[in-house]
Amino acid sequence: MDRLRYKIAVLGGTGAQGSGLALRLSAAGHAVTLGSRDGGRAQRAAEQLSGRSRTRVSGSENPAAAAGADIVILTVPYSVQRGTVEAVLTELQGKVLVDATAPLMPPKVGTVQLPAGRSAVAAIQQLAGETVRVVSAFQNVSAQHLNELDHEVDCDVLVCGNDRDACDVVIGLCSDIGLRGFFAGPIENSVAAEALTSVLITINRRYKIAGAGIRITGPK
Amino acid sequence: MDRLRYKIAVLGGTGAQGSGLALRLSAAGHAVTLGSRDGGRAQRAAEQLSGRSRTRVSGSENPAAAAGADIVILTVPYSVQRGTVEAVLTELQGKVLVDATAPLMPPKVGTVQLPAGRSAVAAIQQLAGETVRVVSAFQNVSAQHLNELDHEVDCDVLVCGNDRDACDVVIGLCSDIGLRGFFAGPIENSVAAEALTSVLITINRRYKIAGAGIRITGPK
Repeated sequence: MDRLRYKIAVLGGTGAQGSGLALRLSAAGHAVTLGSRDGGRAQRAAEQLSGRSRTRVSGSENPAAAAGADIVILTVPYSVQRGTVEAVLTELQGKVLVDATAPLMPPKVGTVQLPAGRSAVAAIQQLAGETVRVVSAFQNVSAQHLNELDHEVDCDVLVCGNDRDACDVVIGLCSDIGLRGFFAGPIENSVAAEALTSVLITINRRYKIAGAGIRITGPK
Repeated sequence: MDRLRYKIAVLGGTGAQGSGLALRLSAAGHAVTLGSRDGGRAQRAAEQLSGRSRTRVSGSENPAAAAGADIVILTVPYSVQRGTVEAVLTELQGKVLVDATAPLMPPKVGTVQLPAGRSAVAAIQQLAGETVRVVSAFQNVSAQHLNELDHEVDCDVLVCGNDRDACDVVIGLCSDIGLRGFFAGPIENSVAAEALTSVLITINRRYKIAGAGIRITGPK
């Protein structure tokens, strides 16, 4: 059965997590554009990824990347999450925005510190309004694992959102890149994945490992 | 190597989760007392458990159960969490209180609804003060799995608390009953486990299963 091939923009795609997702999505056959505030930087990072993938990766400034995409993935630090979305709000209309943000607050990134006591991704759904279908995903997947293409990522993805069809699209993307995505409830449930990011950082430190993850048990 | 044998009170021990924990802790050799608001009900439930364990289980009203224990485990619905703790606050002084509460708000128990945007267990640490060492644990373990003694529980336990020694004691209890406990950070990180409870309920419904759980990947 043919899989759908999407045009996907990864904003913040020059960072470790964005690059890892872009690499895997590109290797799975999707048409990926890296977005950055600095278009030249995005192009250089895209050229590097293209050398590792069977599909060419493009790079451009965030608004142009978002404008050309069916699906936009956001992988930026929490401190610039809102500003990045505001800068592409026009380009996001009618699209799926996959937000991978966890609200880490340096220096205590191993401590859960939810902004205003709620999900950072739910706040973006509120900002963008219902004409943008926001889906929370990928908070718990280690960038290091994503960037090693021949490495099986031992981590599931909690997928939250108010639009079930959009969630199913993202669960399909997970499957395309070798991950299991699970529908995990409405957008406010993203709190679980966001808080888990700090827990996994704590576990990495306490048990002296890199890239702890989670698996959901029960479903076959 | 000898394991420590603790005197453990399980408040709310007549419920499904409390009974399951009590059964497994008793079977592991700990001296367990079920606590309930109704002492007679606690005694009847304790007699039933005693028939399934190699160690006798006792039952009494909550304050008497807490008074006689080294470690007190709280497994009551969120709606009576605070009242139950207030009723045994004197008996908790100097002890470890293991709070398994997840703030489920019927009817939408599959939606994360954190009270005042924070951990329900962290609120108990604040209520009790530093003379009670509160540890968050067991939010994600299915009562059904716990109650089947010959059943391997396919779920890890996130253990949060401000007192590392108390957390290590609880990680030891997990090990005694066949579970892996992981130190998951300070008490406010309990938000992750509490929110996951609603996520797991959502996954149970969506994937038509019972007793979904989580495993931490990475640590050996």
